[in-house]
Amino acid sequence: MSDIQLNHVAFVVDDLDAALRFWREGIGLTGGAVQSLPAEAVDIAFLELGATHIELIKPTSSDSGVAKHLAKRGPGLHHLCLEVPDLDAKLGELRAAGYELINDEPRKREGQRYAFVHPRSTGGILLELYERIDKSRE
Amino acid sequence: MSDIQLNHVAFVVDDLDAALRFWREGIGLTGGAVQSLPAEAVDIAFLELGATHIELIKPTSSDSGVAKHLAKRGPGLHHLCLEVPDLDAKLGELRAAGYELINDEPRKREGQRYAFVHPRSTGGILLELYERIDKSRE
Repeated sequence: MSDIQLNHVAFVVDDLDAALRFWREGIGLTGGAVQSLPAEAVDIAFLELGATHIELIKPTSSDSGVAKHLAKRGPGLHHLCLEVPDLDAKLGELRAAGYELINDEPRKREGQRYAFVHPRSTGGILLELYERIDKSRE
Repeated sequence: MSDIQLNHVAFVVDDLDAALRFWREGIGLTGGAVQSLPAEAVDIAFLELGATHIELIKPTSSDSGVAKHLAKRGPGLHHLCLEVPDLDAKLGELRAAGYELINDEPRKREGQRYAFVHPRSTGGILLELYERIDKSRE
């Protein structure tokens, strides 16, 4: 087994309440507290699914990347997110092998560094790779 | 935490060799032995990803459901598969709540019973629910 984990599978939805009702009441998953991220113009919710999570993403404006994805492709997969132990090493390997990264340099958010791999390189899906940051070394 | 697990995330691809190269050599996942399923007109491969799996599906004819999915939507997510402890109970609950099942009765394959929920009910994704069959009771 590799040391890579599936952190979450993210879906873009047009009706967050209905999707939460399905996954919580219909399927029986726990979690799902809605967080608003005004800077990204999305509402999101994470549901617990064993060792991984489902993320639901609903655009809150019509001109964001997520909103355009929804308008173009309809509701469905947005991205897959893998946790890797060493993000820089993995990005270097992918770059050296000729795969196409969306972020040349990792981006940062609380407790994490992350970068996206282009669907052209993965066989058709947007792939996020992230690494947890050791808080004591920030 | 619920007792529901993510068994696999299945992607339809148009180039199975390239996709396997990306996930194995690029990302570093293990597994990926290719199985041909002539009855379903697909080649498939499962990659280990922590406690779950990525399934890659490549159509081997142009008239199967998977081939039409690929032609219509391009490579990307095909379905999400959850393992549930009691499939009949879960299907009954979903039906009672008005959700749309693709299979009225569970189908059966070696060691498993399974049924699909329509994307219209899930918020946009094809969802497989399956239950392991206790071999001693078959």
